[in-house]
Amino acid sequence: MAPHVYTLKDIYQVTATPEFKKNLLQGIKDGFVAFHQGQFYAAPIQTLGAPPAPPLGLTTDAAYAAQTCVKSGYFLGRDYYVIKVASGGAPWPRNSGSMQVYSQTTGELEALLLDEGILTEWRTAAVGALVVQQWMHGWKLQFASSSPPTTVSCIGMLGTGIQARYQLYMMEQVLECRTVRVWGRTPHHVQQYQQDMEQRGWQVQVVSTPEELNDCPVIVTTTNARTSLLPYRPSRSRRLVVCIGADAPGKQELDPEWFTHADTLISDVVTQSQERGEFQHVPQQECTEIVALGAVLQDTKEERLSETTVSAQLTLFDSSGTAVQDCVVAEMVYQSLRQCHQSS
Amino acid sequence: MAPHVYTLKDIYQVTATPEFKKNLLQGIKDGFVAFHQGQFYAAPIQTLGAPPAPPLGLTTDAAYAAQTCVKSGYFLGRDYYVIKVASGGAPWPRNSGSMQVYSQTTGELEALLLDEGILTEWRTAAVGALVVQQWMHGWKLQFASSSPPTTVSCIGMLGTGIQARYQLYMMEQVLECRTVRVWGRTPHHVQQYQQDMEQRGWQVQVVSTPEELNDCPVIVTTTNARTSLLPYRPSRSRRLVVCIGADAPGKQELDPEWFTHADTLISDVVTQSQERGEFQHVPQQECTEIVALGAVLQDTKEERLSETTVSAQLTLFDSSGTAVQDCVVAEMVYQSLRQCHQSS
Repeated sequence: MAPHVYTLKDIYQVTATPEFKKNLLQGIKDGFVAFHQGQFYAAPIQTLGAPPAPPLGLTTDAAYAAQTCVKSGYFLGRDYYVIKVASGGAPWPRNSGSMQVYSQTTGELEALLLDEGILTEWRTAAVGALVVQQWMHGWKLQFASSSPPTTVSCIGMLGTGIQARYQLYMMEQVLECRTVRVWGRTPHHVQQYQQDMEQRGWQVQVVSTPEELNDCPVIVTTTNARTSLLPYRPSRSRRLVVCIGADAPGKQELDPEWFTHADTLISDVVTQSQERGEFQHVPQQECTEIVALGAVLQDTKEERLSETTVSAQLTLFDSSGTAVQDCVVAEMVYQSLRQCHQSS
Repeated sequence: MAPHVYTLKDIYQVTATPEFKKNLLQGIKDGFVAFHQGQFYAAPIQTLGAPPAPPLGLTTDAAYAAQTCVKSGYFLGRDYYVIKVASGGAPWPRNSGSMQVYSQTTGELEALLLDEGILTEWRTAAVGALVVQQWMHGWKLQFASSSPPTTVSCIGMLGTGIQARYQLYMMEQVLECRTVRVWGRTPHHVQQYQQDMEQRGWQVQVVSTPEELNDCPVIVTTTNARTSLLPYRPSRSRRLVVCIGADAPGKQELDPEWFTHADTLISDVVTQSQERGEFQHVPQQECTEIVALGAVLQDTKEERLSETTVSAQLTLFDSSGTAVQDCVVAEMVYQSLRQCHQSS
């Protein structure tokens, strides 16, 4: 049987619905708990065009800017397995990719979601928002409930790319805050970001150094930097830094001094974050344990979360992205698309 | 831009042409040399549904029968990169899969070849035939020339599945021999194989034990066994065993005694063959060096092949399959399809 092929236009029909963000948050949360309980298998990631692989592209000056990741996995005993391809970076004109939904019953490709990378943006942003939500509630949020939005004074945003936008789209679901303080390297990208986010109802404060983000209680880092951009400055407030950008060996956004001052380190996948996430730069002598997000969510559910995690003055969360998220979003979107097309 | 989607029917138009097999052999040969010269990157393979991953499928009795492999790679500085998905095994009703051709210039999916696994069959069989051809000519075949067919008395075939058929299709290109001696576990599969191959002009000798294949100068093993099936028996003739079936940890077709008697071990990818190919079962105390196919082909080209390889009485070749082959066949078929569709 030929697979269903869905274009970005089809996919927008689902992602634009009012319930999409809420369901995605819940799905991602459940997914990470299942992962922690051994109910999900994530294959080792394939990375094309990033070390140790040679550069992709026909020109040498494009070395290591463009990158493609293949993430694959499945929930045990469920209907599908998902293979996700996401690519982006200069000199490629835009992000692209697909999510491929295969049947565990027949092995066949059932649906090809030609999402041009946006489902990866959504599922990545969802983890950021989920962590902010849980952290805001002192990790004490009733597990299954959908939470009331809460607030912080502002969100600090390092970077002005696509993910810097999607992070705010998802934060809207969990925070009443509509103030973002942003730093970006390229002035006209910063301008465009400001304009786009203001149109969406955000108050945008542009700052001229990354250091000025330090006053924000929540900082999100979304660049593809390969050197530390964000210096550590002490603060008297409880803080959370959500590290999104680093997802391959060599990538880095934080000054390692952050690790010296952090009380709690949480990551989506512990070993992976040490190999390809921001946590690859945790100094060797640093002995702060890294806790898996799934474990934290599980402990929250069972009300046995450690006091360190709850009362941490400085929490760092590192997302390098996992097939769990791809499976959750692909299955969710495919299911909605089938319903749309059946009823239309 | 939406990708070109080609179905099996389209792909047959290419694979049925008289030049397909010849070009494939040459492409695979050139590909392995380039690989050996560091001009190809193969990402670590993703295997879903085989250890250490949990079983796929909704029933537990299907444990580890069904498996999906994702193989990805690219030639440095060429136009495309390829991601290949191949799945098969009981209880899935049939093999399926796709080859996805992406542009190195834009990162975008240019073509989706919904080949249902047959391009994997072809490219796997091509390596078997290539090795037989080179071995038959004492590895002394002029590198760039297309070789005259040669002959052996018969081919021994362990297994009666799809790959056992494709191996013969490709052997037709390099051997005049049309006699196959076959052993299979399931009588009605053996019957069907006999009938199909006889219709194609082969003389089929069915034997009742694997041991009886030992007299054949060339033996090809194509089962998905997880225990040794083929016992070693001495022979006074020069012999080649082509091990195709084992492509994941735990799979095995040969009695390890074969390794004790082998003079030369060659594999498509040395480390991979030790992890997931037949050569994972080479006894630890055995110190026969494993030579890469690309190195052998390169040495053949430069006329500096070792005397051991040339005069070996017993040569074992292990193929566990690599993205090199997928890239070669996918690029070749896509290029032909574009030409067909432009001219039609």
